[in-house]
Amino acid sequence: MNERGFIEALRALATSPAARGLKDDAAVIEFGSETLILTHDTMVEGVHTLEGQDPADVAWKLVAVNLSDLAAKGAQPEGVLISHMLGDDDHRFIEGLRSILAKYDVPLLGGDTVRGEGRRVWGCTAIGRATHIPVPSRSGAEAGDAVYLGGPIGQALVGFEALRDGTPGDQAPYCRPLPQIDLGRDIAPHVTAMMDVSDGLLLDASRLAEASHVTLRLDSELISVLAPQERLDDAMRWGDDYVLLCTGPHGLDQHHALTRVGSVAAFKGDRLLVDGTPPTGDLGYTH
Amino acid sequence: MNERGFIEALRALATSPAARGLKDDAAVIEFGSETLILTHDTMVEGVHTLEGQDPADVAWKLVAVNLSDLAAKGAQPEGVLISHMLGDDDHRFIEGLRSILAKYDVPLLGGDTVRGEGRRVWGCTAIGRATHIPVPSRSGAEAGDAVYLGGPIGQALVGFEALRDGTPGDQAPYCRPLPQIDLGRDIAPHVTAMMDVSDGLLLDASRLAEASHVTLRLDSELISVLAPQERLDDAMRWGDDYVLLCTGPHGLDQHHALTRVGSVAAFKGDRLLVDGTPPTGDLGYTH
Repeated sequence: MNERGFIEALRALATSPAARGLKDDAAVIEFGSETLILTHDTMVEGVHTLEGQDPADVAWKLVAVNLSDLAAKGAQPEGVLISHMLGDDDHRFIEGLRSILAKYDVPLLGGDTVRGEGRRVWGCTAIGRATHIPVPSRSGAEAGDAVYLGGPIGQALVGFEALRDGTPGDQAPYCRPLPQIDLGRDIAPHVTAMMDVSDGLLLDASRLAEASHVTLRLDSELISVLAPQERLDDAMRWGDDYVLLCTGPHGLDQHHALTRVGSVAAFKGDRLLVDGTPPTGDLGYTH
Repeated sequence: MNERGFIEALRALATSPAARGLKDDAAVIEFGSETLILTHDTMVEGVHTLEGQDPADVAWKLVAVNLSDLAAKGAQPEGVLISHMLGDDDHRFIEGLRSILAKYDVPLLGGDTVRGEGRRVWGCTAIGRATHIPVPSRSGAEAGDAVYLGGPIGQALVGFEALRDGTPGDQAPYCRPLPQIDLGRDIAPHVTAMMDVSDGLLLDASRLAEASHVTLRLDSELISVLAPQERLDDAMRWGDDYVLLCTGPHGLDQHHALTRVGSVAAFKGDRLLVDGTPPTGDLGYTH
Protein backbone atom coordinates (compact mmCIF):
# COMPACT_ATOMS: atom_id res chain seq x y z
CA MET A 1 0.00 0.00 0.00
CA ASN A 2 1.63 3.29 -1.05
CA GLU A 3 1.02 6.69 0.49
CA ARG A 4 -1.75 7.59 -1.92
CA GLY A 5 -3.42 4.26 -1.27
CA PHE A 6 -3.19 4.77 2.46
CA ILE A 7 -4.67 8.24 2.28
CA GLU A 8 -7.47 6.99 0.03
CA ALA A 9 -8.17 4.20 2.52
CA LEU A 10 -8.24 6.73 5.34
CA ARG A 11 -10.61 8.92 3.34
CA ALA A 12 -12.89 5.95 2.85
CA LEU A 13 -13.04 5.61 6.63
CA ALA A 14 -13.66 9.32 7.08
CA THR A 15 -17.30 9.30 6.09
CA SER A 16 -18.21 12.26 8.27
CA PRO A 17 -18.91 15.41 6.25
CA ALA A 18 -16.65 17.19 8.75
CA ALA A 19 -13.63 15.38 7.35
CA ARG A 20 -13.32 17.54 4.27
CA GLY A 21 -9.79 16.71 3.42
CA LEU A 22 -7.64 14.38 5.41
CA LYS A 23 -4.00 15.43 5.48
CA ASP A 24 -4.35 18.71 3.65
CA ASP A 25 -7.41 20.44 5.01
CA ALA A 26 -8.94 21.15 8.38
CA ALA A 27 -11.97 19.42 9.88
CA VAL A 28 -15.06 21.55 10.46
CA ILE A 29 -17.66 20.39 12.99
CA GLU A 30 -20.68 21.91 14.59
CA PHE A 31 -20.29 22.07 18.33
CA GLY A 32 -23.02 23.56 20.45
CA SER A 33 -23.79 27.01 19.10
CA GLU A 34 -20.35 27.32 17.49
CA THR A 35 -18.40 25.84 14.61
CA LEU A 36 -15.13 24.21 15.55
CA ILE A 37 -12.10 23.92 13.25
CA LEU A 38 -9.54 21.18 13.95
CA THR A 39 -6.22 20.58 12.27
CA HIS A 40 -3.19 18.37 12.94
CA ASP A 41 0.30 18.42 11.44
CA THR A 42 3.22 16.14 12.19
CA MET A 43 6.84 17.09 11.52
CA VAL A 44 9.78 14.68 11.20
CA GLU A 45 13.36 15.78 11.87
CA GLY A 46 15.34 16.01 8.66
CA VAL A 47 12.19 15.63 6.57
CA HIS A 48 10.19 18.71 7.51
CA THR A 49 13.14 20.40 9.21
CA LEU A 50 16.83 20.73 8.42
CA GLU A 51 19.10 18.39 10.40
CA GLY A 52 20.43 20.25 13.41
CA GLN A 53 17.93 23.08 13.14
CA ASP A 54 17.34 25.13 16.29
CA PRO A 55 14.52 23.40 18.21
CA ALA A 56 13.11 26.86 18.97
CA ASP A 57 12.47 27.32 15.26
CA VAL A 58 11.04 23.79 15.01
CA ALA A 59 8.55 24.57 17.78
CA TRP A 60 7.61 27.86 16.13
CA LYS A 61 7.03 26.23 12.78
CA LEU A 62 5.13 23.28 14.27
CA VAL A 63 2.57 25.68 15.71
CA ALA A 64 2.71 28.09 12.76
CA VAL A 65 1.77 25.51 10.12
CA ASN A 66 -1.32 24.59 12.14
CA LEU A 67 -2.30 28.20 12.78
CA SER A 68 -1.96 28.78 9.03
CA ASP A 69 -4.53 26.02 8.44
CA LEU A 70 -6.85 27.83 10.84
CA ALA A 71 -6.16 31.15 9.06
CA ALA A 72 -7.34 29.58 5.80
CA LYS A 73 -10.68 28.89 7.52
CA GLY A 74 -10.96 32.42 8.89
CA ALA A 75 -10.80 30.83 12.34
CA GLN A 76 -9.84 32.37 15.66
CA PRO A 77 -7.30 30.06 17.37
CA GLU A 78 -8.56 28.65 20.67
CA GLY A 79 -5.59 26.53 21.64
CA VAL A 80 -3.03 23.92 20.69
CA LEU A 81 -1.97 20.48 21.91
CA ILE A 82 1.69 19.58 21.39
CA SER A 83 3.34 16.19 21.03
CA HIS A 84 7.06 16.35 21.69
CA MET A 85 9.77 13.71 21.49
CA LEU A 86 12.32 14.46 24.19
CA GLY A 87 15.87 15.16 23.12
CA ASP A 88 18.75 17.59 23.46
CA ASP A 89 18.07 21.29 23.68
CA ASP A 90 14.52 20.85 24.93
CA HIS A 91 14.80 24.27 26.58
CA ARG A 92 15.12 25.73 23.09
CA PHE A 93 11.92 23.96 22.03
CA ILE A 94 10.16 25.49 25.04
CA GLU A 95 11.54 28.91 24.11
CA GLY A 96 10.20 28.72 20.54
CA LEU A 97 6.87 27.44 21.76
CA ARG A 98 6.63 30.27 24.26
CA SER A 99 7.44 32.82 21.53
CA ILE A 100 4.79 31.81 19.03
CA LEU A 101 2.08 31.23 21.64
CA ALA A 102 2.74 34.73 22.96
CA LYS A 103 2.89 36.25 19.47
CA TYR A 104 -0.51 34.85 18.52
CA ASP A 105 -1.97 34.84 22.04
CA VAL A 106 -2.87 31.14 21.80
CA PRO A 107 -3.23 28.95 24.91
CA LEU A 108 -1.32 25.69 25.24
CA LEU A 109 -4.05 23.23 26.23
CA GLY A 110 -2.18 19.97 26.59
CA GLY A 111 -0.29 17.30 24.75
CA ASP A 112 2.08 14.45 25.29
CA THR A 113 5.81 13.84 25.62
CA VAL A 114 7.49 10.62 24.57
CA ARG A 115 10.96 9.16 24.50
CA GLY A 116 12.28 7.88 21.21
CA GLU A 117 15.38 7.19 19.22
CA GLY A 118 16.62 8.31 15.83
CA ARG A 119 14.77 11.02 14.00
CA ARG A 120 12.56 13.04 16.27
CA VAL A 121 8.88 13.53 15.54
CA TRP A 122 6.64 16.37 16.67
CA GLY A 123 2.91 16.86 16.38
CA CYS A 124 0.52 19.74 16.89
CA THR A 125 -3.25 19.83 16.98
CA ALA A 126 -4.81 23.28 16.75
CA ILE A 127 -8.41 24.12 17.40
CA GLY A 128 -10.18 27.26 16.33
CA ARG A 129 -13.56 28.91 16.36
CA ALA A 130 -15.09 29.83 13.02
CA THR A 131 -15.66 33.58 12.70
CA HIS A 132 -17.73 33.37 9.55
CA ILE A 133 -20.32 30.86 8.34
CA PRO A 134 -20.10 29.25 5.88
CA VAL A 135 -16.50 28.44 6.70
CA PRO A 136 -14.31 29.08 3.63
CA SER A 137 -13.27 25.90 1.84
CA ARG A 138 -11.23 25.05 -1.22
CA SER A 139 -14.22 24.15 -3.27
CA GLY A 140 -16.10 27.41 -3.81
CA ALA A 141 -14.12 29.13 -6.58
CA GLU A 142 -16.28 30.18 -9.53
CA ALA A 143 -15.52 31.22 -13.08
CA GLY A 144 -15.11 34.98 -13.17
CA ASP A 145 -13.53 35.25 -9.72
CA ALA A 146 -10.17 36.87 -9.23
CA VAL A 147 -7.29 34.91 -7.66
CA TYR A 148 -5.34 36.57 -4.83
CA LEU A 149 -2.27 35.95 -2.72
CA GLY A 150 -2.01 37.30 0.83
CA GLY A 151 1.74 37.91 0.72
CA PRO A 152 5.07 37.18 -0.96
CA ILE A 153 6.26 33.75 -2.05
CA GLY A 154 9.80 32.44 -2.29
CA GLN A 155 10.90 34.17 0.92
CA ALA A 156 11.00 30.80 2.65
CA LEU A 157 13.06 29.40 -0.23
CA VAL A 158 15.66 32.15 0.22
CA GLY A 159 15.58 31.65 3.98
CA PHE A 160 16.03 27.89 3.60
CA GLU A 161 19.05 28.32 1.33
CA ALA A 162 20.55 30.90 3.68
CA LEU A 163 20.18 28.50 6.61
CA ARG A 164 21.38 25.42 4.73
CA ASP A 165 24.27 27.00 2.84
CA GLY A 166 25.21 29.90 5.08
CA THR A 167 24.53 32.29 2.20
CA PRO A 168 23.27 35.83 2.79
CA GLY A 169 19.54 36.22 3.17
CA ASP A 170 16.86 36.47 5.81
CA GLN A 171 16.31 33.05 7.41
CA ALA A 172 13.23 34.17 9.31
CA PRO A 173 10.62 33.49 6.60
CA TYR A 174 11.73 29.82 6.56
CA CYS A 175 12.38 29.44 10.30
CA ARG A 176 9.58 31.54 11.72
CA PRO A 177 6.72 31.83 9.22
CA LEU A 178 3.88 34.17 10.15
CA PRO A 179 0.45 32.59 9.67
CA GLN A 180 -2.07 35.15 8.41
CA ILE A 181 -4.69 34.79 11.13
CA ASP A 182 -5.92 38.40 11.00
CA LEU A 183 -6.08 38.50 7.22
CA GLY A 184 -7.91 35.18 7.07
CA ARG A 185 -10.53 36.40 9.51
CA ASP A 186 -10.92 39.71 7.68
CA ILE A 187 -11.46 38.21 4.25
CA ALA A 188 -13.40 35.06 5.25
CA PRO A 189 -16.77 36.75 4.62
CA HIS A 190 -15.73 37.83 1.12
CA VAL A 191 -13.80 34.92 -0.44
CA THR A 192 -15.32 32.12 -2.49
CA ALA A 193 -12.46 29.70 -1.74
CA MET A 194 -9.37 29.86 0.45
CA MET A 195 -6.36 27.79 1.50
CA ASP A 196 -2.78 28.43 2.59
CA VAL A 197 0.24 27.97 0.34
CA SER A 198 2.22 25.34 2.21
CA ASP A 199 3.52 23.09 -0.56
CA GLY A 200 4.09 25.56 -3.41
CA LEU A 201 1.82 28.02 -5.21
CA LEU A 202 1.41 25.90 -8.35
CA LEU A 203 0.63 22.71 -6.46
CA ASP A 204 -1.73 24.35 -3.99
CA ALA A 205 -3.46 26.37 -6.74
CA SER A 206 -4.04 23.16 -8.68
CA ARG A 207 -5.55 21.58 -5.56
CA LEU A 208 -7.90 24.51 -5.10
CA ALA A 209 -8.85 24.31 -8.79
CA GLU A 210 -9.50 20.58 -8.50
CA ALA A 211 -11.65 20.96 -5.38
CA SER A 212 -13.65 23.74 -7.09
CA HIS A 213 -13.87 22.02 -10.51
CA VAL A 214 -12.50 25.11 -12.25
CA THR A 215 -9.37 26.29 -14.02
CA LEU A 216 -7.07 28.75 -12.27
CA ARG A 217 -5.31 31.09 -14.71
CA LEU A 218 -2.24 32.60 -13.07
CA ASP A 219 -0.34 35.57 -14.51
CA SER A 220 3.40 35.37 -13.85
CA GLU A 221 3.85 39.12 -14.30
CA LEU A 222 1.42 39.77 -11.47
CA ILE A 223 3.12 37.11 -9.34
CA SER A 224 6.61 38.43 -10.07
CA VAL A 225 6.16 41.44 -7.81
CA LEU A 226 5.65 39.01 -4.89
CA ALA A 227 8.72 36.84 -5.56
CA PRO A 228 12.51 37.31 -5.32
CA GLN A 229 14.03 38.58 -8.57
CA GLU A 230 15.15 35.85 -11.00
CA ARG A 231 13.71 33.13 -8.72
CA LEU A 232 10.11 33.39 -9.88
CA ASP A 233 9.84 29.84 -11.20
CA ASP A 234 11.42 28.35 -8.07
CA ALA A 235 9.28 30.56 -5.85
CA MET A 236 6.09 29.29 -7.49
CA ARG A 237 7.07 25.66 -6.80
CA TRP A 238 8.47 26.06 -3.28
CA GLY A 239 6.37 25.75 -0.16
CA ASP A 240 6.70 26.94 3.40
CA ASP A 241 5.57 30.50 2.79
CA TYR A 242 2.19 30.05 4.51
CA VAL A 243 0.53 32.96 2.77
CA LEU A 244 -3.16 32.76 1.96
CA LEU A 245 -4.38 31.91 -1.53
CA CYS A 246 -7.99 32.83 -2.21
CA THR A 247 -10.56 33.52 -4.86
CA GLY A 248 -13.34 36.07 -4.77
CA PRO A 249 -14.83 39.12 -6.43
CA HIS A 250 -12.63 41.58 -8.27
CA GLY A 251 -11.63 44.56 -6.15
CA LEU A 252 -11.05 42.69 -2.89
CA ASP A 253 -7.46 43.91 -3.08
CA GLN A 254 -8.69 47.49 -2.74
CA HIS A 255 -9.75 46.90 0.86
CA HIS A 256 -7.48 44.08 2.02
CA ALA A 257 -3.77 43.28 1.89
CA LEU A 258 -4.17 41.04 -1.14
CA THR A 259 -2.45 40.99 -4.52
CA ARG A 260 -4.34 39.78 -7.57
CA VAL A 261 -2.37 37.08 -9.39
CA GLY A 262 -4.91 35.66 -11.83
CA SER A 263 -8.49 34.70 -12.50
CA VAL A 264 -10.83 31.73 -12.40
CA ALA A 265 -12.22 30.22 -15.60
CA ALA A 266 -14.61 27.38 -16.32
CA PHE A 267 -12.84 24.01 -16.38
CA LYS A 268 -11.84 22.97 -19.88
CA GLY A 269 -9.30 20.21 -19.29
CA ASP A 270 -6.50 21.96 -17.39
CA ARG A 271 -6.61 22.64 -13.66
CA LEU A 272 -3.96 25.29 -13.88
CA LEU A 273 -2.62 27.63 -16.55
CA VAL A 274 0.33 29.97 -16.11
CA ASP A 275 0.33 32.66 -18.78
CA GLY A 276 -2.06 30.44 -20.71
CA THR A 277 0.06 27.28 -20.59
CA PRO A 278 -0.17 24.26 -18.26
CA PRO A 279 2.94 24.16 -16.04
CA THR A 280 5.14 21.07 -16.32
CA GLY A 281 7.47 19.31 -13.90
CA ASP A 282 7.02 19.17 -10.15
CA LEU A 283 4.46 21.76 -9.14
CA GLY A 284 5.51 21.72 -5.51
CA TYR A 285 6.51 19.72 -2.51
CA THR A 286 4.57 16.55 -1.90
CA HIS A 287 5.16 14.95 1.48
CA MET B 1 16.69 19.52 30.76
CA ASN B 2 15.22 16.15 31.78
CA GLU B 3 11.68 14.95 31.07
CA ARG B 4 10.29 16.27 34.34
CA GLY B 5 11.93 19.61 33.70
CA PHE B 6 10.46 19.76 30.21
CA ILE B 7 6.98 18.94 31.42
CA GLU B 8 7.25 21.52 34.20
CA ALA B 9 8.38 24.09 31.62
CA LEU B 10 5.43 23.15 29.42
CA ARG B 11 3.09 23.47 32.38
CA ALA B 12 4.47 26.92 33.08
CA LEU B 13 3.50 27.85 29.51
CA ALA B 14 0.06 26.30 29.90
CA THR B 15 -1.46 29.08 31.95
CA SER B 16 -4.98 28.46 30.67
CA PRO B 17 -7.22 26.89 33.32
CA ALA B 18 -8.28 24.47 30.57
CA ALA B 19 -4.86 22.85 30.64
CA ARG B 20 -5.48 20.87 33.81
CA GLY B 21 -2.74 18.38 33.38
CA LEU B 22 -0.41 18.32 30.45
CA LYS B 23 0.57 14.80 29.43
CA ASP B 24 -1.66 12.91 31.81
CA ASP B 25 -5.04 14.61 31.76
CA ALA B 26 -7.44 15.97 29.18
CA ALA B 27 -8.06 19.63 28.41
CA VAL B 28 -11.52 20.99 29.18
CA ILE B 29 -12.68 24.16 27.42
CA GLU B 30 -15.95 26.00 27.11
CA PHE B 31 -17.03 26.19 23.52
CA GLY B 32 -20.27 27.86 22.61
CA SER B 33 -23.01 26.30 24.70
CA GLU B 34 -21.02 23.09 25.19
CA THR B 35 -17.94 21.90 27.03
CA LEU B 36 -15.26 20.35 24.87
CA ILE B 37 -12.77 17.71 26.03
CA LEU B 38 -9.49 17.34 24.13
CA THR B 39 -6.78 14.74 24.57
CA HIS B 40 -3.69 13.68 22.63
CA ASP B 41 -1.47 10.61 22.96
CA THR B 42 1.61 9.71 20.99
CA MET B 43 2.90 6.13 20.65
CA VAL B 44 6.43 5.10 19.64
CA GLU B 45 7.16 1.72 18.09
CA GLY B 46 8.99 -0.52 20.51
CA VAL B 47 8.34 1.89 23.39
CA HIS B 48 4.56 1.88 23.64
CA THR B 49 4.17 -1.19 21.42
CA LEU B 50 6.03 -4.46 21.07
CA GLU B 51 8.45 -4.64 18.12
CA GLY B 52 6.71 -6.27 15.20
CA GLN B 53 3.23 -5.93 16.71
CA ASP B 54 0.32 -6.11 14.29
CA PRO B 55 -0.33 -2.53 13.07
CA ALA B 56 -4.05 -3.26 13.37
CA ASP B 57 -3.60 -3.63 17.13
CA VAL B 58 -1.41 -0.50 17.20
CA ALA B 59 -4.17 1.51 15.51
CA TRP B 60 -6.77 0.10 17.89
CA LYS B 61 -4.72 0.96 20.95
CA LEU B 62 -3.79 4.42 19.63
CA VAL B 63 -7.47 5.34 19.48
CA ALA B 64 -8.42 3.36 22.61
CA VAL B 65 -6.01 5.17 24.94
CA ASN B 66 -7.47 8.49 23.86
CA LEU B 67 -11.06 7.33 24.16
CA SER B 68 -10.20 6.12 27.66
CA ASP B 69 -9.10 9.66 28.56
CA LEU B 70 -12.49 10.87 27.32
CA ALA B 71 -14.25 8.13 29.34
CA ALA B 72 -12.57 9.44 32.48
CA LYS B 73 -14.26 12.79 31.81
CA GLY B 74 -17.66 11.23 31.20
CA ALA B 75 -17.38 12.57 27.64
CA GLN B 76 -19.15 11.46 24.49
CA PRO B 77 -16.53 11.02 21.71
CA GLU B 78 -17.07 13.38 18.77
CA GLY B 79 -14.15 12.36 16.59
CA VAL B 80 -10.45 11.67 16.25
CA LEU B 81 -7.53 12.98 14.21
CA ILE B 82 -4.79 10.47 13.41
CA SER B 83 -1.12 11.02 12.68
CA HIS B 84 0.46 8.05 10.94
CA MET B 85 4.01 7.36 9.84
CA LEU B 86 3.88 5.34 6.66
CA GLY B 87 5.44 1.89 6.70
CA ASP B 88 4.86 -1.74 5.88
CA ASP B 89 1.48 -3.28 6.49
CA ASP B 90 -0.37 0.02 6.34
CA HIS B 91 -3.48 -1.90 5.28
CA ARG B 92 -3.42 -3.56 8.71
CA PHE B 93 -3.28 -0.15 10.38
CA ILE B 94 -6.33 0.88 8.37
CA GLU B 95 -8.09 -2.33 9.37
CA GLY B 96 -7.51 -1.76 13.09
CA LEU B 97 -8.58 1.86 12.78
CA ARG B 98 -11.74 0.83 10.98
CA SER B 99 -12.53 -1.71 13.72
CA ILE B 100 -12.30 0.58 16.70
CA LEU B 101 -14.01 3.52 15.00
CA ALA B 102 -16.91 1.21 14.15
CA LYS B 103 -16.96 -0.37 17.61
CA TYR B 104 -17.28 3.01 19.33
CA ASP B 105 -19.10 4.78 16.49
CA VAL B 106 -16.51 7.57 16.37
CA PRO B 107 -15.91 9.62 13.20
CA LEU B 108 -12.42 10.01 11.75
CA LEU B 109 -12.14 13.78 11.27
CA GLY B 110 -8.68 14.22 9.82
CA GLY B 111 -5.00 13.93 10.51
CA ASP B 112 -1.68 13.74 8.80
CA THR B 113 0.60 11.16 7.24
CA VAL B 114 4.38 11.47 7.15
CA ARG B 115 7.33 9.50 5.91
CA GLY B 116 10.05 8.64 8.35
CA GLU B 117 12.82 6.21 9.15
CA GLY B 118 13.60 4.06 12.15
CA ARG B 119 11.04 3.66 14.87
CA ARG B 120 7.58 4.65 13.76
CA VAL B 121 5.56 7.20 15.66
CA TRP B 122 1.78 7.57 15.78
CA GLY B 123 -0.43 10.22 17.28
CA CYS B 124 -4.11 10.58 18.00
CA THR B 125 -6.13 13.57 19.12
CA ALA B 126 -9.63 12.79 20.39
CA ILE B 127 -12.34 15.33 21.02
CA GLY B 128 -15.42 14.76 23.11
CA ARG B 129 -18.46 16.53 24.41
CA ALA B 130 -18.97 16.71 28.17
CA THR B 131 -22.16 14.96 29.25
CA HIS B 132 -22.09 16.25 32.83
CA ILE B 133 -21.01 19.56 34.34
CA PRO B 134 -18.84 19.89 36.33
CA VAL B 135 -16.60 17.60 34.30
CA PRO B 136 -15.05 14.97 36.61
CA SER B 137 -11.42 15.67 37.43
CA ARG B 138 -8.74 14.02 39.54
CA SER B 139 -8.92 16.61 42.23
CA GLY B 140 -12.33 16.16 43.85
CA ALA B 141 -11.86 13.12 46.13
CA GLU B 142 -12.87 13.77 49.73
CA ALA B 143 -12.24 11.99 53.01
CA GLY B 144 -15.02 9.49 53.60
CA ASP B 145 -15.49 8.63 49.90
CA ALA B 146 -15.24 5.08 48.67
CA VAL B 147 -12.67 4.15 45.97
CA TYR B 148 -13.88 2.09 43.01
CA LEU B 149 -12.47 0.33 39.98
CA GLY B 150 -14.51 -0.08 36.79
CA GLY B 151 -13.05 -3.46 35.86
CA PRO B 152 -10.25 -5.98 36.28
CA ILE B 153 -6.54 -5.13 36.35
CA GLY B 154 -3.62 -7.28 35.27
CA GLN B 155 -5.44 -8.62 32.21
CA ALA B 156 -3.21 -6.48 29.98
CA LEU B 157 -0.15 -7.82 31.82
CA VAL B 158 -1.18 -11.41 31.05
CA GLY B 159 -1.97 -10.44 27.46
CA PHE B 160 1.39 -8.70 27.05
CA GLU B 161 3.28 -11.75 28.32
CA ALA B 162 1.25 -14.04 26.07
CA LEU B 163 2.07 -11.89 23.06
CA ARG B 164 5.75 -11.38 23.92
CA ASP B 165 6.53 -14.91 25.06
CA GLY B 166 3.98 -16.98 23.18
CA THR B 167 2.64 -18.27 26.49
CA PRO B 168 -1.04 -19.21 26.89
CA GLY B 169 -3.38 -16.37 27.76
CA ASP B 170 -5.76 -13.93 26.17
CA GLN B 171 -3.81 -11.28 24.25
CA ALA B 172 -6.85 -9.13 23.62
CA PRO B 173 -6.79 -7.08 26.84
CA TYR B 174 -3.29 -5.89 25.92
CA CYS B 175 -3.80 -5.58 22.16
CA ARG B 176 -7.36 -4.31 22.05
CA PRO B 177 -8.28 -2.58 25.31
CA LEU B 178 -11.88 -1.48 25.71
CA PRO B 179 -12.22 2.09 26.98
CA GLN B 180 -15.17 2.44 29.34
CA ILE B 181 -17.06 5.20 27.55
CA ASP B 182 -20.53 4.10 28.65
CA LEU B 183 -19.53 3.54 32.26
CA GLY B 184 -17.75 6.90 32.43
CA ARG B 185 -20.83 8.71 31.14
CA ASP B 186 -23.12 6.82 33.54
CA ILE B 187 -21.13 7.56 36.67
CA ALA B 188 -19.88 11.09 35.81
CA PRO B 189 -22.78 12.73 37.71
CA HIS B 190 -22.02 10.69 40.84
CA VAL B 191 -18.24 10.56 41.24
CA THR B 192 -16.12 13.06 43.17
CA ALA B 193 -12.95 12.26 41.17
CA MET B 194 -12.17 10.04 38.18
CA MET B 195 -9.31 8.99 35.93
CA ASP B 196 -8.34 5.93 33.93
CA VAL B 197 -5.74 3.40 35.01
CA SER B 198 -3.18 3.61 32.23
CA ASP B 199 0.15 3.40 34.05
CA GLY B 200 -0.68 1.07 36.96
CA LEU B 201 -3.24 1.20 39.75
CA LEU B 202 -0.80 2.22 42.46
CA LEU B 203 0.79 4.99 40.39
CA ASP B 204 -2.50 6.34 39.09
CA ALA B 205 -4.15 6.12 42.52
CA SER B 206 -1.27 8.11 44.00
CA ARG B 207 -1.74 10.74 41.26
CA LEU B 208 -5.43 11.04 42.06
CA ALA B 209 -4.60 11.30 45.78
CA GLU B 210 -2.03 14.01 45.11
CA ALA B 211 -4.40 16.03 42.91
CA SER B 212 -7.11 15.76 45.58
CA HIS B 213 -4.80 16.36 48.58
CA VAL B 214 -6.05 13.21 50.28
CA THR B 215 -4.83 9.72 51.17
CA LEU B 216 -6.19 6.75 49.23
CA ARG B 217 -6.41 3.60 51.35
CA LEU B 218 -6.57 0.54 49.13
CA ASP B 219 -7.54 -2.93 50.36
CA SER B 220 -5.67 -5.71 48.57
CA GLU B 221 -8.33 -8.30 49.48
CA LEU B 222 -10.96 -6.26 47.67
CA ILE B 223 -8.61 -5.74 44.70
CA SER B 224 -7.65 -9.41 44.54
CA VAL B 225 -11.00 -10.42 43.05
CA LEU B 226 -10.21 -8.15 40.08
CA ALA B 227 -6.71 -9.49 39.39
CA PRO B 228 -5.21 -12.75 38.07
CA GLN B 229 -4.43 -15.23 40.85
CA GLU B 230 -0.94 -14.95 42.33
CA ARG B 231 -0.20 -11.86 40.22
CA LEU B 232 -1.89 -9.32 42.46
CA ASP B 233 1.24 -7.28 43.19
CA ASP B 234 2.27 -7.18 39.50
CA ALA B 235 -1.28 -6.37 38.46
CA MET B 236 -1.39 -3.34 40.76
CA ARG B 237 1.81 -1.95 39.20
CA TRP B 238 1.11 -2.71 35.55
CA GLY B 239 -0.66 -0.33 33.24
CA ASP B 240 -2.54 -0.70 29.99
CA ASP B 241 -5.81 -1.93 31.50
CA TYR B 242 -7.70 1.32 30.83
CA VAL B 243 -10.35 0.70 33.46
CA LEU B 244 -11.81 3.64 35.34
CA LEU B 245 -10.66 4.54 38.84
CA CYS B 246 -13.02 6.80 40.75
CA THR B 247 -14.08 8.04 44.14
CA GLY B 248 -17.58 8.80 45.32
CA PRO B 249 -20.25 8.00 47.85
CA HIS B 250 -20.55 4.52 49.31
CA GLY B 251 -23.12 2.36 47.51
CA LEU B 252 -22.29 3.50 43.96
CA ASP B 253 -21.37 -0.14 43.24
CA GLN B 254 -25.00 -1.14 43.89
CA HIS B 255 -26.17 0.64 40.73
CA HIS B 256 -23.11 0.62 38.48
CA ALA B 257 -20.54 -1.91 37.34
CA LEU B 258 -18.00 -0.80 39.92
CA THR B 259 -16.04 -2.70 42.55
CA ARG B 260 -15.10 -1.00 45.79
CA VAL B 261 -11.36 -1.32 46.45
CA GLY B 262 -10.77 1.12 49.28
CA SER B 263 -11.61 4.43 50.88
CA VAL B 264 -10.45 8.03 51.00
CA ALA B 265 -8.96 9.50 54.18
CA ALA B 266 -7.69 12.93 55.12
CA PHE B 267 -4.07 13.43 54.07
CA LYS B 268 -1.63 12.65 56.89
CA GLY B 269 1.70 12.30 55.11
CA ASP B 270 1.14 9.34 52.74
CA ARG B 271 -0.61 9.65 49.39
CA LEU B 272 -1.33 5.97 49.22
CA LEU B 273 -1.70 3.12 51.70
CA VAL B 274 -2.21 -0.52 50.75
CA ASP B 275 -3.55 -2.50 53.72
CA GLY B 276 -2.40 0.38 55.87
CA THR B 277 1.18 0.50 54.60
CA PRO B 278 2.79 2.81 51.98
CA PRO B 279 3.75 0.72 48.93
CA THR B 280 7.46 0.68 48.01
CA GLY B 281 9.31 0.22 44.72
CA ASP B 282 8.03 1.27 41.31
CA LEU B 283 4.34 2.02 41.59
CA GLY B 284 3.77 1.77 37.85
CA TYR B 285 4.98 2.61 34.40
CA THR B 286 6.35 6.10 33.91
CA HIS B 287 6.92 7.10 30.30
